[in-house]
Amino acid sequence: MPERVAPAFEWPVRVYWEDTDAGGIVFYANYLKFFERARTEWLRSLGIEQGALRQRTGGMFVVSQTALQYLQPARLDDELIVTAALVKYGRSSLWIEQQARRKVCATILCEASIRIGWVDANFKPARIPSCVLQRLGTSS
Amino acid sequence: MPERVAPAFEWPVRVYWEDTDAGGIVFYANYLKFFERARTEWLRSLGIEQGALRQRTGGMFVVSQTALQYLQPARLDDELIVTAALVKYGRSSLWIEQQARRKVCATILCEASIRIGWVDANFKPARIPSCVLQRLGTSS
Amino acid sequence: MPERVAPAFEWPVRVYWEDTDAGGIVFYANYLKFFERARTEWLRSLGIEQGALRQRTGGMFVVSQTALQYLQPARLDDELIVTAALVKYGRSSLWIEQQARRKVCATILCEASIRIGWVDANFKPARIPSCVLQRLGTSS
Amino acid sequence: MPERVAPAFEWPVRVYWEDTDAGGIVFYANYLKFFERARTEWLRSLGIEQGALRQRTGGMFVVSQTALQYLQPARLDDELIVTAALVKYGRSSLWIEQQARRKVCATILCEASIRIGWVDANFKPARIPSCVLQRLGTSS
Repeated sequence: MPERVAPAFEWPVRVYWEDTDAGGIVFYANYLKFFERARTEWLRSLGIEQGALRQRTGGMFVVSQTALQYLQPARLDDELIVTAALVKYGRSSLWIEQQARRKVCATILCEASIRIGWVDANFKPARIPSCVLQRLGTSS
Repeated sequence: MPERVAPAFEWPVRVYWEDTDAGGIVFYANYLKFFERARTEWLRSLGIEQGALRQRTGGMFVVSQTALQYLQPARLDDELIVTAALVKYGRSSLWIEQQARRKVCATILCEASIRIGWVDANFKPARIPSCVLQRLGTSS
Repeated sequence: MPERVAPAFEWPVRVYWEDTDAGGIVFYANYLKFFERARTEWLRSLGIEQGALRQRTGGMFVVSQTALQYLQPARLDDELIVTAALVKYGRSSLWIEQQARRKVCATILCEASIRIGWVDANFKPARIPSCVLQRLGTSS
Repeated sequence: MPERVAPAFEWPVRVYWEDTDAGGIVFYANYLKFFERARTEWLRSLGIEQGALRQRTGGMFVVSQTALQYLQPARLDDELIVTAALVKYGRSSLWIEQQARRKVCATILCEASIRIGWVDANFKPARIPSCVLQRLGTSS
């Protein structure tokens, strides 16, 4: 299993009122949304549409583990760059590393390790469809 | 069609960090969540469980209109009382009036008129199941 | 006070997992977030940055009324076009009309009338700063 | 530094439409909200009100690390029990372990390790106020 299969994908995210909390900063749970958007667009850039895939196969990716470190706060109107990079994969799981950086100066705000697993229509773990693995650039 | 079919149901809601925005107050979109919780608990108090109902009938309630007025802001840690009262009903729709009040002094923070309609599994408007209408205390 | 002061501003919105609910469609409260993003970008396109404005003046826009009609559901991966058009204004309020349309076929999914008011640092209604009104293309 | 300073605090959480996604289950990011509510109520049960504390001291707790494992999905209408237990503490950080269990059968759905740190009004790490540490039952 190779380390860092593909270079990091980048996706811009703007901070809106909906993302902030009374501390005046982005509510920490919302970084999971930012990271999800970047993963979704990364998959889409590889030709993997999750909604269509689910309709065709009945299965889908679900998040099984998340580990986040919050380093610096983001604020209203901030422009962020959110990255996604596949660092490891197995038959039923992908490990993805992600960052949210401020666009100006590239200050790292939040880092994440996310594990996503493939499940069938009954939420049972299952093998990732081979067409998906191929598009991910893995050699399996 | 009678006005105000039943007395207002009341449901307590506490304001957490997740509910606030960088203005230091509850983010206005989140009142729709508070009102939804109160409607859900009001229906539950009448023996109507939406998840089970959907599994049995394939249909469900969807929100088709919302009109809200924001009068006073709520803040972190505030205790609210959220009400729900059925004010009008038809074969496929219910009109519900709701308020969010601060528990202390009963200051009205937000008022809402919500219309919910019954749809079948394909999101087509349909008649509200008669067992539901009966539990709502309507005479149809 | 003229009707429809400016042509409708358009902003693209993609539907992600975070936006959906167990009905399989976009959770109705989340259209308020989509409309907010479009209003924010519309203001930004006119040179009005809400975060900076608040730091300089202490005041800010708050939403005081919302009226929404839900016409058709949106689903995961859908591309939406969200519009914002100023239709009326006073010294302390703006009335904005908005739509969320599916990009394909331009089906209207949701329509909104939103009133936003200017408040000072204590959330008291106040006059909209004249620099803001000027940028909005009003003649006051 | 002792392990498991206090027994686990328990807080009930009901799953509403707002919590679910198009997979038909609770959206994984929302467990962070459930855990936050339980931590807030745990602190409140010890006499620590975060909003009041911030007004008095200028400082507040912020989440600095989260690690979650998703074991089983929760669904609409499910009743959950969410726990919070202080397992380690330092001068400026608390480590809290949390679980979300289904009330029926106590199936563990999600487990979390959360680190929260105290910051001053400028989001600089700072010592947790001694009155807070005392209420937490620590001996410092």
